[in-house]
Amino acid sequence: MTAQLTVSDGVARTPTAEGVVRAAAKIAAILQPTPLLPLEIDGVTVWCKAECLQPIGAFKIRGAWHRLTDLSAEERRRGVVGVSSGNHAQGVAWAARRLGIEATIVMPGDAPRVKLDNTRALGARVVLYDRPGGEDRDAVAARLCAQTGATLVHAFADPWIIEGQGSTGIELTAQMQILAGGAPQQIVVPCGGGGLSAGLALACPDAGIVPVEPEGWDDVGRSLAAGTILPVSADAPPTACDALQTPSTRPINFAILSERCHRALVVSPAEVRAAQRLAFAKLKLVLEPGGAAALAAVLAGDVELNLRTAVVLSGGNTDAAAFAQVLAEEA
Amino acid sequence: MTAQLTVSDGVARTPTAEGVVRAAAKIAAILQPTPLLPLEIDGVTVWCKAECLQPIGAFKIRGAWHRLTDLSAEERRRGVVGVSSGNHAQGVAWAARRLGIEATIVMPGDAPRVKLDNTRALGARVVLYDRPGGEDRDAVAARLCAQTGATLVHAFADPWIIEGQGSTGIELTAQMQILAGGAPQQIVVPCGGGGLSAGLALACPDAGIVPVEPEGWDDVGRSLAAGTILPVSADAPPTACDALQTPSTRPINFAILSERCHRALVVSPAEVRAAQRLAFAKLKLVLEPGGAAALAAVLAGDVELNLRTAVVLSGGNTDAAAFAQVLAEEA
Repeated sequence: MTAQLTVSDGVARTPTAEGVVRAAAKIAAILQPTPLLPLEIDGVTVWCKAECLQPIGAFKIRGAWHRLTDLSAEERRRGVVGVSSGNHAQGVAWAARRLGIEATIVMPGDAPRVKLDNTRALGARVVLYDRPGGEDRDAVAARLCAQTGATLVHAFADPWIIEGQGSTGIELTAQMQILAGGAPQQIVVPCGGGGLSAGLALACPDAGIVPVEPEGWDDVGRSLAAGTILPVSADAPPTACDALQTPSTRPINFAILSERCHRALVVSPAEVRAAQRLAFAKLKLVLEPGGAAALAAVLAGDVELNLRTAVVLSGGNTDAAAFAQVLAEEA
Repeated sequence: MTAQLTVSDGVARTPTAEGVVRAAAKIAAILQPTPLLPLEIDGVTVWCKAECLQPIGAFKIRGAWHRLTDLSAEERRRGVVGVSSGNHAQGVAWAARRLGIEATIVMPGDAPRVKLDNTRALGARVVLYDRPGGEDRDAVAARLCAQTGATLVHAFADPWIIEGQGSTGIELTAQMQILAGGAPQQIVVPCGGGGLSAGLALACPDAGIVPVEPEGWDDVGRSLAAGTILPVSADAPPTACDALQTPSTRPINFAILSERCHRALVVSPAEVRAAQRLAFAKLKLVLEPGGAAALAAVLAGDVELNLRTAVVLSGGNTDAAAFAQVLAEEA
């Protein structure tokens, strides 16, 4: 058990570019590449990686598949435990069902309904916790693992998860070579704990990685500026970007990000909603707030577009009522 | 001029399977294949061809590109005229801009705002007409062609348009061979005038073609039943499926459809809205009402699913307010 907990803390091994390539091969064997859609902004084409079109509506299926397929037969028998506001939850549940593994997911009670429903529909057991002031979710997960011997599958501080999410970069590089005439020079990416950002950094050593966080949840940006990990403040405001609502990045992620990222960008709630509306109107895609964060930064003019640019649209799991409200704001 | 008008009436030449293959090659040279997304319905997977992800948000870009690229230099110089509620309009405008051809589109004044705006943004001149009781739109177009020598590009009764739309079938067959283990045995498809349905029939000679029309606009279904072309009744109800609001199919389409289709299906407004909501929730795609018609028929249980089934999601050009209202109905 100790080894697994250690691995989940990211100390046991370092994620590698080779691991990303191995993950990409496993993922290509079961999932179609998501489309890379051109979007013209101020006369410049940026390339949008539509991860919202994954079977679970988010890129998190990648890391979960890489992690669970690498479990031993004995580990599979004992099951897995995940902690997630909903996209990692669905990724783990999806992979677990396909592999015949029992999955338990610790989720906040105020997660979007669609995420709770879909996680349960995929056959996972859902354990709810109260987000503000309630029991620490990692403690809940650790207790569950201790009880059953299950493996903890952390949402971002795990070498397999980082490598798996990095497969996004392998795919989009191949697509951009064909469609955009070359590999991406920069990748703008929604950032919660930094799993996807770190994975992309490993996958695309020659590209600038630009993480984007929602207002008040800019721990990665502040940590990069400080040169050391800083959590969000205790009074961080509520954010519609539930997928990016992570109190703190972890050493396994920060080690990679601090080497590769000069800075992270911050987007406001209004900028996120504008990006959701643009994706609706121009790309015909449904994006959840967190999934639209990178696009929001590009639209807000925070990203220099004189480089060949990829923008990750990381997820689309949003409730109908919430999305209708975002659309109505414009109408 | 006579030859062009004759061609537009579909008499000059018959669309062919060879023409579809030629169109598919031209289209593959400039457009990515749209994704084919699995959707589980009652435990059965159907394959959804996401044509809403085309650059103009609809499959109509295909036929327009095939038609306009086959115009002579002299014809290109004289420009083109299209008639459309908005998707064919954008297809013709997109192809015309790329080829440096002047395009004029005759559109109903009550077309969705997004379609009017996008057509103009693509550089086309838009001429509006009043849909009910106003001037016959084909007469307006014929007058414009007579004035300038422009080529009329009919939205469906044109061999190039039929062949171009048929390229959808070439793409989805190749994709289903890989993803579904074989070519489609049936293709369920939204149907207005029958351009896409006829093209698919040519592209996929071994598949059943199942056209789907909105309530009250079931001229193809009634024509198939009667064995002769029947228009919709004069008092056809209004429909949200503006893209499928065609008073009558034409001989060039009916000749193909009557040989290949046993019947067409009809979907209600509520069934269409339910399909839009499902595409939102499960596929993270924005579908306009007409683009959701085939999916609506599948969800309504009108299609036998014991065959390997493709469902065309033909377009996603809908206004934010209208889509918000569809979503709010569920919330």
